[in-house]
Amino acid sequence: MDLLSIDSLTDAQIETILDRAQMHFGSNREGRSSQALAGRIVFNVFYENSTRTAMSFATAVHRLGASAISLSVEHSSVRKGETLEDTARTLNAMLPDALVIRHRENGAPATVASIMEAPVINAGDGTNEHPTQALLDAATLRQHLGRIQGLTIAICGDIKHSRVARSNGLLLPRLGANVRLAGPAELMPDGLPPLTIDEAIDGADVVMMLRVQRERLEEDLGDAPGEYLDRYGLTRERLARAAAGAVVMHPGPMNRGVEIDPLIADDPQRSLITLQVEMGVAVRMACLELLVENRPA
Amino acid sequence: MDLLSIDSLTDAQIETILDRAQMHFGSNREGRSSQALAGRIVFNVFYENSTRTAMSFATAVHRLGASAISLSVEHSSVRKGETLEDTARTLNAMLPDALVIRHRENGAPATVASIMEAPVINAGDGTNEHPTQALLDAATLRQHLGRIQGLTIAICGDIKHSRVARSNGLLLPRLGANVRLAGPAELMPDGLPPLTIDEAIDGADVVMMLRVQRERLEEDLGDAPGEYLDRYGLTRERLARAAAGAVVMHPGPMNRGVEIDPLIADDPQRSLITLQVEMGVAVRMACLELLVENRPA
Amino acid sequence: MDLLSIDSLTDAQIETILDRAQMHFGSNREGRSSQALAGRIVFNVFYENSTRTAMSFATAVHRLGASAISLSVEHSSVRKGETLEDTARTLNAMLPDALVIRHRENGAPATVASIMEAPVINAGDGTNEHPTQALLDAATLRQHLGRIQGLTIAICGDIKHSRVARSNGLLLPRLGANVRLAGPAELMPDGLPPLTIDEAIDGADVVMMLRVQRERLEEDLGDAPGEYLDRYGLTRERLARAAAGAVVMHPGPMNRGVEIDPLIADDPQRSLITLQVEMGVAVRMACLELLVENRPA
Repeated sequence: MDLLSIDSLTDAQIETILDRAQMHFGSNREGRSSQALAGRIVFNVFYENSTRTAMSFATAVHRLGASAISLSVEHSSVRKGETLEDTARTLNAMLPDALVIRHRENGAPATVASIMEAPVINAGDGTNEHPTQALLDAATLRQHLGRIQGLTIAICGDIKHSRVARSNGLLLPRLGANVRLAGPAELMPDGLPPLTIDEAIDGADVVMMLRVQRERLEEDLGDAPGEYLDRYGLTRERLARAAAGAVVMHPGPMNRGVEIDPLIADDPQRSLITLQVEMGVAVRMACLELLVENRPA
Repeated sequence: MDLLSIDSLTDAQIETILDRAQMHFGSNREGRSSQALAGRIVFNVFYENSTRTAMSFATAVHRLGASAISLSVEHSSVRKGETLEDTARTLNAMLPDALVIRHRENGAPATVASIMEAPVINAGDGTNEHPTQALLDAATLRQHLGRIQGLTIAICGDIKHSRVARSNGLLLPRLGANVRLAGPAELMPDGLPPLTIDEAIDGADVVMMLRVQRERLEEDLGDAPGEYLDRYGLTRERLARAAAGAVVMHPGPMNRGVEIDPLIADDPQRSLITLQVEMGVAVRMACLELLVENRPA
Repeated sequence: MDLLSIDSLTDAQIETILDRAQMHFGSNREGRSSQALAGRIVFNVFYENSTRTAMSFATAVHRLGASAISLSVEHSSVRKGETLEDTARTLNAMLPDALVIRHRENGAPATVASIMEAPVINAGDGTNEHPTQALLDAATLRQHLGRIQGLTIAICGDIKHSRVARSNGLLLPRLGANVRLAGPAELMPDGLPPLTIDEAIDGADVVMMLRVQRERLEEDLGDAPGEYLDRYGLTRERLARAAAGAVVMHPGPMNRGVEIDPLIADDPQRSLITLQVEMGVAVRMACLELLVENRPA
């Protein structure tokens, strides 16, 4: 069993992950450690730079008592022209107990998973999916608001290129949320009904802002960074349109003053941003456990 | 005791490594882990990019219950102009239990070993040697064919610059194999009898293809990548000259369609390429164990 | 409690660190390992290249039975424009038990520590401080000479830009040493009394040479590397001015033949340079232990 997409998971498995994440969240805070995966080896293979996701997975692996072996693109055979399939065959032959992969190409984790016998977790592939991010977002909402069912969740920004938006767009509705996607017209996928960011936020219980790539600001929008906030970012005026007590999320890393007003990001009543990071470790522990346990002997 | 070259090892030590590797190979498949080196620290110092060898050694270290601390050239004092001897004195003073080193200069591991008190394993130095690769090749053949004695083994490609060829050329004859080295005339060491690749493969039990560096293709041979396969690579026509049931090896990473026809690389009846990788972890476990055990207290 | 500067520590804490370092030094030599921090996770975050310090901290973490998770600048969100504060919030939310940070900007570890709940250790920040280096220097002197009280210690080189000089200048006088700082006039901080290197070394018990940056040689001094040794480096003639039996230290990595005559660096009667490295692991074990133990539950 692999975790390549939100659709890799049954409803029961999603429930298991969210329940266990909540348990690990509590244990981590109390400093209790698990030995659930003692003696296991997890490969963390990152073909894209990452602080939070790479550290989060490594931390999750260690908190389960397992060993993490990390490979980053700089040290890889990619430069030597080896195909991704051959790299996967090589990694598979080393018999890891699980493999976590981030790759800039859509579908690369699926290619690797088609070869690996061990479970593969997609830690973000191109503009496709980032399922553990969506799961940690869901777990964060459940932890903070007690429920997801019935929430109206506005996801705002570069929807077209966002793997976070895509995975959340698949997960949150399955958990009963009403998801609204909005962004600059140039950064919306074809076929989505046009929705302004103001409309998306109107009455929302949750506002999830996406990171905007600085390159896209200039190339696709012709905007200076400062303009983006006024036109498409989360300002205090915009947030005032949301439901009373609405909370704010962001997958990080943030461009402060670009997609989000720093005062909102730092508002302890509103912002769930660091809670998301903390829950991230717990969710990845739950995912690793589930996948490794479900592995046929 | 260090493992710098095949000649570092006595026949009895080679036997021990091959026997233990076979044992670890079985244990690894069954998911049983060892604690033979629990509490030990192994430094993995790579001055050259590597996927398979770095991951393989790190996996071997963890499967023995030890801790691996990795250093890659990007983070090193090399850039700051420290001599290799001073780096070795520094690493030695941290009292690791073993040191694995890959370096682009011939003899660098020997220089380091002359300073280190802990055992040093050469994980490939320039065009000199790569002894654990030769040991894993031997272990793979013993695992798959049950013997090495009496085998005719053709090693084909850039013999002049290949540390894999050099270490295998030292090891396999000691184990009773008849080794034939062949490659483009420009890529053969001086003094070797000229042998065409077709002649080398004729009646061989094992065909080991070497990786060709793309730079050498153009600079030394004036060839386009496509030409190499026809002139010097392992095509199905060439493989048909080998003994019935001949097997194919490659140290990786492969240039598919350059030194080897992809259909051969992927032929489960013929190709031992992923078996080599799997055996690599087992052989490195055996080498680490032997060296650390043999260390004077 | 954090270790950002020598001034972070009380006299009693300094004593504890030096005492425990001496104990760990002995245990490490005997190959005995500790499980004092078993189950703990230490983040090692290096925004500057480093061999010795990064390896030293990683080794210290492992020798205490804890897990080290390393992040180097190449893989970081720094490039993506995240603020240091946001990176600190992210790392904090992953609940490490301690964080070790090296950064090219003065004060960066203090910024991070103002956010982190876990103890933060400054592993060198710009031209500001490198407190564990000063502690290991003190521990080395105590180990080798049996005392620090009353010693005359000349620290020579680029005083202006040296975080090593700065931390030692704070620590060693607190332990009763008489510290003299000397270097090329262009590389001395404002306000320090002018002292030639010859004067500083005169009668000194300890001569600590600092690394000179090659860029500074040319830019600030207009010197070729060879000239530096004669004018400001530790030659045998200069060392002859020191007290009988004077010892020599260097934080590394050394520029042999630039700031120090190689014959001095390699003189087993004089040079404490590798002893410093060995003591470095022991001191970092002591610091990690003290900080993690002192953490409120």
